[in-house]
Amino acid sequence: MTNPGWLQMHPRDTIAVLTRRAGKGERPLGRGVALERAIEAGHKIALGDIMPGEAIIKFGQIIGYASVPVVAGEHVHTHNCSMGSHDRDYVIGADFESALASTPKAEPMTFAGYHRDDGTVGTRNYIALVATVNCSATVIRRAAADINTSGILDQFPNVDGVVALSHGTGCGMASEGPGHDNLQRVLWGHATHPNVGAALFVGLGCEVMQIARMRAAYGEGGERFHGLTIQETGGTTRTVEAIVAAIHDLLPKVNAVSREPAPVSKLAVALQCGGSDGFSGITANPALGVASDMLVGMGGSVVLAETPEIYGAEQLLLRRAAGQDVADKLLERIAWWEHYTAINGGAMDNNPSPGNKAGGLTTILEKSLGAVAKAGSAPLGDVLDYGAKLRRPGLTFMDSPGFDPVSVTGQIASGAQVVVFTTGRGSAFGSKPAPTIKVASNSRLANAMPDDMDIDCGGILDGVSMEEKGREILALIVATASGQKSKSEKLGLGDNEFLPWQIGAVM
Amino acid sequence: MTNPGWLQMHPRDTIAVLTRRAGKGERPLGRGVALERAIEAGHKIALGDIMPGEAIIKFGQIIGYASVPVVAGEHVHTHNCSMGSHDRDYVIGADFESALASTPKAEPMTFAGYHRDDGTVGTRNYIALVATVNCSATVIRRAAADINTSGILDQFPNVDGVVALSHGTGCGMASEGPGHDNLQRVLWGHATHPNVGAALFVGLGCEVMQIARMRAAYGEGGERFHGLTIQETGGTTRTVEAIVAAIHDLLPKVNAVSREPAPVSKLAVALQCGGSDGFSGITANPALGVASDMLVGMGGSVVLAETPEIYGAEQLLLRRAAGQDVADKLLERIAWWEHYTAINGGAMDNNPSPGNKAGGLTTILEKSLGAVAKAGSAPLGDVLDYGAKLRRPGLTFMDSPGFDPVSVTGQIASGAQVVVFTTGRGSAFGSKPAPTIKVASNSRLANAMPDDMDIDCGGILDGVSMEEKGREILALIVATASGQKSKSEKLGLGDNEFLPWQIGAVM
Ligand SMILES: [Ca+2]
Ligand SMILES: [Ca+2]
Ligand SMILES: [Ca+2]
Ligand SMILES: [Ca+2]
Ligand SMILES: [Ca+2]
Repeated sequence: MTNPGWLQMHPRDTIAVLTRRAGKGERPLGRGVALERAIEAGHKIALGDIMPGEAIIKFGQIIGYASVPVVAGEHVHTHNCSMGSHDRDYVIGADFESALASTPKAEPMTFAGYHRDDGTVGTRNYIALVATVNCSATVIRRAAADINTSGILDQFPNVDGVVALSHGTGCGMASEGPGHDNLQRVLWGHATHPNVGAALFVGLGCEVMQIARMRAAYGEGGERFHGLTIQETGGTTRTVEAIVAAIHDLLPKVNAVSREPAPVSKLAVALQCGGSDGFSGITANPALGVASDMLVGMGGSVVLAETPEIYGAEQLLLRRAAGQDVADKLLERIAWWEHYTAINGGAMDNNPSPGNKAGGLTTILEKSLGAVAKAGSAPLGDVLDYGAKLRRPGLTFMDSPGFDPVSVTGQIASGAQVVVFTTGRGSAFGSKPAPTIKVASNSRLANAMPDDMDIDCGGILDGVSMEEKGREILALIVATASGQKSKSEKLGLGDNEFLPWQIGAVM
Repeated sequence: MTNPGWLQMHPRDTIAVLTRRAGKGERPLGRGVALERAIEAGHKIALGDIMPGEAIIKFGQIIGYASVPVVAGEHVHTHNCSMGSHDRDYVIGADFESALASTPKAEPMTFAGYHRDDGTVGTRNYIALVATVNCSATVIRRAAADINTSGILDQFPNVDGVVALSHGTGCGMASEGPGHDNLQRVLWGHATHPNVGAALFVGLGCEVMQIARMRAAYGEGGERFHGLTIQETGGTTRTVEAIVAAIHDLLPKVNAVSREPAPVSKLAVALQCGGSDGFSGITANPALGVASDMLVGMGGSVVLAETPEIYGAEQLLLRRAAGQDVADKLLERIAWWEHYTAINGGAMDNNPSPGNKAGGLTTILEKSLGAVAKAGSAPLGDVLDYGAKLRRPGLTFMDSPGFDPVSVTGQIASGAQVVVFTTGRGSAFGSKPAPTIKVASNSRLANAMPDDMDIDCGGILDGVSMEEKGREILALIVATASGQKSKSEKLGLGDNEFLPWQIGAVM
């Protein structure tokens, strides 16, 4: 394949994206006017003539309107493209039917997973030690290390290991409110996650986040809960011993499952990006969007998150919303974020920065679309609080910060069994109990971090189709769900990236 | 020694504290009136007759005033003791001279420490790997584990090991403001800590907390800084290898120091409490206060913290303040906390809870004095922001939450080389690079957690004097400073308790 030097991302698009620098006087598309000045990769060129007021379309979506006449071959940017005020209007559900119709329908693929009593299917089979407070971080980490390095797991081949979910909060916090609720949902969501065969809560004893209160909030939790505290157990050494003994008891039971076929409609995939670059929005994210749409078409679930990164383009999601309640929840979350940042002395602002503009991003819609592209074009079926359990298949938006470990921790708590993470500048992220697949937006990164990157989307710049790359990502999702280890799993990552979203005063 | 059943904490006190339950009709002091009803341990009894309006004195300090006539032997609590409104007045420096005069003067004891080029003296000699962001948590932890378990440290007997200071922030945060400044001070304070022979910053590359910006803020940092990033180094595996190689280079240099005598005026001790109980304020905290005063008398430094726990009794510290600037800084921090909690939907409130009152605590002054008692009666010489470097010997108050790991992380960043941590309910806390000594308020706890508790203050209830217990604590501080391992060090604790205070929106 030869690199044509430009890319049309969607058949409806009225612009092409340059994939390499073009000099003054060049006609990179081979047609239209010559460039008046040199422009960099990532910038846009008009595919045909565009009248003033006519839509500029990228990703198959409106990113702005021509503010002056634009001719074929001309550079399209802030000098001739701007947002109309009506693009801020919330036309709830306007694109729902078309989004539904465009979702590719296919017979579900299958993966081999661990079928749980509650009907969920795990892609991994961990024993989870869950700290209610930082004070029990060390004892659970030590107990997990004891078991994982003892050799005993050789006798239990269906157990992926013991994961210690330690964190830096659980006390010195309000005993109610969003910070408390976030942590409680995250701990509960991990303890009851399909990838967790058994869970053990471990506390100090006097912390704010009480095991008993969590049980009362969610019900008994069945056999999964055998909580203990350091204060009752008699200190560090005895608690480590008690945890290790409890794991010995749990191992045979947790091992007594094996992978069985399941339709991918049992899969929930977390969509995430971090360390993005100018290529993320034109290669890795839309390729992931193709995979996401295929998964949705097969009845699966995908979880988009990172509220600050969709901010300013929420109307794009609202147009795809399945109902007023879904739209209202998204708007309520956005209003909450505006308050959250304001009281903390900041402001929500996802407008293209000077660096973004130098990279070719013209409007907030275009920038946010680059992030939203991870979720393809499926209808928006639900909006959830951070870490809340998924309620229906299809595309769900979960409220979260953009900060990778915090966002993914919420997505896994919500039930995602596989995470797909796009990056342009590079990331060493990994996660447990759900594995992370990392997707590079460019081949330079894929080559620079070969041990970390699972998929290279750089080929899209050289003519590999989005469709083909999307199928490659979907195939790797299914293989990973069936037990194939991702790069981050081979590296053993995921023991330091469990990071519940802290909100509120630390007391 | 026999347990008399009560305790007079200070010669000036007008009340005694019951150390065991007393029944209706009993006269636990052996004099005065009989009790009208049974009262529990921790409650107060009048040592003599007290006129209405006369001060009720505990810890040698006014905790309230008799609201009605009180006779010797009578129970003193909310029914006959309350705070006068003038106790809220800030009489800055009123007690400064008397506090100065009462500080015990003695020739400094000496400890054996590592003398650094900048004149500081370490009590340990670590190589610190400092993550600028969560994204580099795993690589530094893995590199530290590689070195610590490789056996190579046997060749470098003066090196205490490699400590990985990983955390959950550094990105998805504002690039300025109190949260950013806290983290920067904490990272800098640890990298330049007297207990750290060499430090290496490790980042991902694209995070908010930039290594270069930190260097610009603080100056070059000399040979201590050899920062690297995962994105530049080429991913997880290569970065771990690069860190391990860097440590190999550092080890001979860091090992080329040995312990030499130093006066305890070179010591800074962090005063901390967590998991307090009804005995904390009458045994462990005042005993630590005795040790603290002796250390201050020898020219040493002590760092009190935990602003929410002194709240409502700040006038007690202000009366001991060395100057208006010191008082102003404390008042500024308290006003900041009132705002911080208010915007987060809470309120500052350190008043005795129903549980506290049931335990015998009558006023906010009495409750806060129980916490402030850790700092003895020395003048308040300075007030610092969280994690800011100590500027002068004597008693410094450092602003922090009460949450143990967050508060101690700031105290160590400020330069504390030893931490003394009192607890009544029990704690499994440990810290690096400065070791933690744990002090139990009662013998039940000391017996229940023998591997965790270094000192048992329960004997104070049986007649051991505060003075004697204070000397025992001071002796252990000096021994620990000289290299003797504390209980938490023997357990290897401190790898999961590095927790910079996060303030502000997670983005
Ligand atoms: Ca951690
Ligand atoms: Ca992102
Ligand atoms: Ca992210
Ligand atoms: Ca405390
Ligand atoms: Ca504390």
